[in-house]
Amino acid sequence: MVSKATLGRLPTYLEYLKRQRVLTKVISSTTVSRELDLGEVQVRKDFASISANGKPKTGYNVSELIDSIETVLGTNTKCEAVIVGAGRLGKALLEYGGFHDYGITVKTAFDSTQDKIGGSVLPIEELAPYCALHQVEIGIITVPQDAAQKTAELMVKSGIKAIWCLSALKLDLPDGIAVHYENLSLSLANLKQKIKIN
Amino acid sequence: MVSKATLGRLPTYLEYLKRQRVLTKVISSTTVSRELDLGEVQVRKDFASISANGKPKTGYNVSELIDSIETVLGTNTKCEAVIVGAGRLGKALLEYGGFHDYGITVKTAFDSTQDKIGGSVLPIEELAPYCALHQVEIGIITVPQDAAQKTAELMVKSGIKAIWCLSALKLDLPDGIAVHYENLSLSLANLKQKIKIN
Repeated sequence: MVSKATLGRLPTYLEYLKRQRVLTKVISSTTVSRELDLGEVQVRKDFASISANGKPKTGYNVSELIDSIETVLGTNTKCEAVIVGAGRLGKALLEYGGFHDYGITVKTAFDSTQDKIGGSVLPIEELAPYCALHQVEIGIITVPQDAAQKTAELMVKSGIKAIWCLSALKLDLPDGIAVHYENLSLSLANLKQKIKIN
Repeated sequence: MVSKATLGRLPTYLEYLKRQRVLTKVISSTTVSRELDLGEVQVRKDFASISANGKPKTGYNVSELIDSIETVLGTNTKCEAVIVGAGRLGKALLEYGGFHDYGITVKTAFDSTQDKIGGSVLPIEELAPYCALHQVEIGIITVPQDAAQKTAELMVKSGIKAIWCLSALKLDLPDGIAVHYENLSLSLANLKQKIKIN
């Protein structure tokens, strides 16, 4: 598994390499590190962790490097995620463009409140049939905290394999369901701590 | 410095201990761990890291424990954060209630687009005077990626000491400014990776 830090740099490499592809067939880690202002050892480690092997003195084949990055990023293995909870945060994520870089489409949200439904927001009753039809693998929870557990259970029943939860600290989930909690307050609190130290 | 994981559990301890305060003066780590479904060693480590010391056989003084947690959380050392970029994400954070637990107030956003201004959203020109008047220490960046650097510079000029950036991967900042990058795409991409492995 590629580390989160490496994963974070891959889109930068990808963008740069795609521009270089028209100019050169091979590229050295020295060049990449200089152009992207990264340590050379780090670049080599990143490339090694995505199983890209450079040749001594010549460097990395640019096309192969691009392929390796796209495989790890999953740019070519598209998957769809749905949002449950079409409040401001849910809608913000629905409009957020950045998920495409990682081959993730987020185009539909679900809500139980009548006046939030319309456009890309469907009634919650349609979650299960939608997930089945579109083979949705990821569910994003942005409902109020007290509705998070029920939402997660509904997602699991709808065949969702991974849950990104922005609502609660802890969900009770069956084995085999991947989960990531995004606690925005905590990030900010952590930053506040750093000020006190400085 | 308290670890992010411990920091994440502190609000849970705090809520529980406040309920217990009316019932008991002292509490054991065994009771806390059982009630909150956490490991006892973890509870003791968490309490030790916030400099709370229990007495053998009697346990922890509940009021002192509450004080220690509130000190670390900064519940009593209030600070204010402002948002620059009043798009959907900025507005979602403006309405998000969870920051209060950590003593952080977020009540004003700034934008340069005329039709976003109004209510809690002020024109960007007012950022510097607002920060000076309210002694704002934290800036939250939710502008489009290409405007992030300029926004960060404006924040630093306005006296802001820490930046929470949801817009760009890397900002060029002077020494002494704390920064935390929140990359939402990356969290989701990481989760997608986990599905592939399962």
